[in-house]
Amino acid sequence: MRNYTVAVVGATGAVGQTMLKILEERNFPVGKLVPLASSRSAGQQVTFKNQSFTIQETRPEAFNGVDLALFSAGTDISRQLAPEAVKRGAVVVDNSNAFRMNPEVPLIVPEVNPEAIKDHKGLIANPNCSTIQMLVVLKPLHDRAKIKRVVVSTYQAVSGTGLEAIAELNEQCKQVLAGQQVQPSVYPYQIAFNVLPHIDVFDSTGYSLEEWKMTRETKKVMGADIAVTATTVRVPVYYSHSEAVNIETEYKLSPEEARRVLEAAPGVSVVDDPSKLQYPLPIMATGRDEVFVGRIREDFTIDHGLNLWIVADNVRKGAALNAVQVAELIVNKGLL
Amino acid sequence: MRNYTVAVVGATGAVGQTMLKILEERNFPVGKLVPLASSRSAGQQVTFKNQSFTIQETRPEAFNGVDLALFSAGTDISRQLAPEAVKRGAVVVDNSNAFRMNPEVPLIVPEVNPEAIKDHKGLIANPNCSTIQMLVVLKPLHDRAKIKRVVVSTYQAVSGTGLEAIAELNEQCKQVLAGQQVQPSVYPYQIAFNVLPHIDVFDSTGYSLEEWKMTRETKKVMGADIAVTATTVRVPVYYSHSEAVNIETEYKLSPEEARRVLEAAPGVSVVDDPSKLQYPLPIMATGRDEVFVGRIREDFTIDHGLNLWIVADNVRKGAALNAVQVAELIVNKGLL
Repeated sequence: MRNYTVAVVGATGAVGQTMLKILEERNFPVGKLVPLASSRSAGQQVTFKNQSFTIQETRPEAFNGVDLALFSAGTDISRQLAPEAVKRGAVVVDNSNAFRMNPEVPLIVPEVNPEAIKDHKGLIANPNCSTIQMLVVLKPLHDRAKIKRVVVSTYQAVSGTGLEAIAELNEQCKQVLAGQQVQPSVYPYQIAFNVLPHIDVFDSTGYSLEEWKMTRETKKVMGADIAVTATTVRVPVYYSHSEAVNIETEYKLSPEEARRVLEAAPGVSVVDDPSKLQYPLPIMATGRDEVFVGRIREDFTIDHGLNLWIVADNVRKGAALNAVQVAELIVNKGLL
Repeated sequence: MRNYTVAVVGATGAVGQTMLKILEERNFPVGKLVPLASSRSAGQQVTFKNQSFTIQETRPEAFNGVDLALFSAGTDISRQLAPEAVKRGAVVVDNSNAFRMNPEVPLIVPEVNPEAIKDHKGLIANPNCSTIQMLVVLKPLHDRAKIKRVVVSTYQAVSGTGLEAIAELNEQCKQVLAGQQVQPSVYPYQIAFNVLPHIDVFDSTGYSLEEWKMTRETKKVMGADIAVTATTVRVPVYYSHSEAVNIETEYKLSPEEARRVLEAAPGVSVVDDPSKLQYPLPIMATGRDEVFVGRIREDFTIDHGLNLWIVADNVRKGAALNAVQVAELIVNKGLL
């Protein structure tokens, strides 16, 4: 089997580090690793398969000879440099919001719409973390009962913002416990012992971009006119996003049938016996590849409705793992 | 003006302590204070208006001569002793779940259904904390546009469980920060840096009792057939519950009109300019009497829908303040 020259852009970040770990765990055919980051991090070392690699600055020339580039260094870097990588012959899997809604760019969750990858023109986008985990669960239910509308509220971990947010949560917890004043820096307000109904920027509708991502990306990935209204909220959790998801379906779907469908679905783990304290939790999903679903129950306020509680490691399935799975799909379909 | 002999049952608890504070703050006409608690706490001192009072054990005879008894010592104590207090001539305002759905017992949020108090037979119930704050906001919107359906997800503070849960969150945070193992005791799982989709007990439908409370109490307090489906979740926050609330109305209600209606509503404070970082937060609502609402925006997935973000101090408006307001209502209407 062929080996590939793989660049990881943002190799020092929360997602980039996990990408390296997952490429190693899944034994992705990496012939040569090219870890890239900002000029600030260039010169630092990262370890991959017990070998040390020196991080280079992310510049257009860094992509010469690269077959596959996994981008997770923010929207600006992707917008600027992903086309440069493609121009030099690399296939890019981009984890940022830069190209997701571009009609030329497939937006892929491998468990949901792997077939869409065949149309790629060098660039494939990873959906937003909160969208990915929701759709891994909703796809099999949609196939069975046709989802018409989704009302979702999220409980999102600080690692979605990056390593500096993890450090801020740590620091603020210590300060609050010591009775000291908290000075927020990454978030506009204290995140320790608080929740913030604010992820990404707001527009004139009053929605945040994070909320719009869930609405827009769902339609594109599912290839269906599913209406999503979202409230996205940051909570003082390190890893794993949780979501309270209410769905209305065209056809009747009982909780029992939903459980059966989900137990057979790829990438899904059903944890659903609340009276025995079995329900998904962020601390249990962390470090795991599956999307966990539980609290599956009938919504008695509409004819065909269900409530679900969906939890997944936002850095793994919500970002790094999904990107590597997309890369595997490209390799397996001979599209690289 | 007449003064009353007032018993506070559960005077050492999170809600009981706040009841004492609020009776004092609002200068409720307390002639004699009778602080009551379990035998474990009897003999301890509490301070009220700079005077020290000795806590007595909650026994039937303790209610002899009591005019008004505020109960917040759990459902079992209320079930057992509230009727004893009533039998001895006291009017009881009960904060537990014991009598809320009893058709003989008015369930009162003073801003919502003060008129229902006139039918009291000695016992008046306080709704559940998460219900109270939601209804203070929904009532004026319902009067304007008729609410048909509510989908709510909660972010509930640990103080709702009691002082021992606050201590557990503190202790677990310290342990996690020190890299130590966490041993949950109040909650079934770690609450520090985690969220638990589990408040109160589950039944065979898969819903928790806390979720059913929101569904059932809404109908009773609002006196209207409003369908509520809820997901209630504990978050690592000390004080103040937050709620992501999606409503469907019979008539069109724009976000602008909803804001105007809410700005004029009793007990409500509108904090809603997200692009200027103005939205309700638990750390800002704590210690305040108002119910805060923001993130008011149109739900584009239905003809007449709104999303709202509602935050209030669960120990104050969600419990102690509401009980004292009910007591004031009884006094003002000459019903004591």
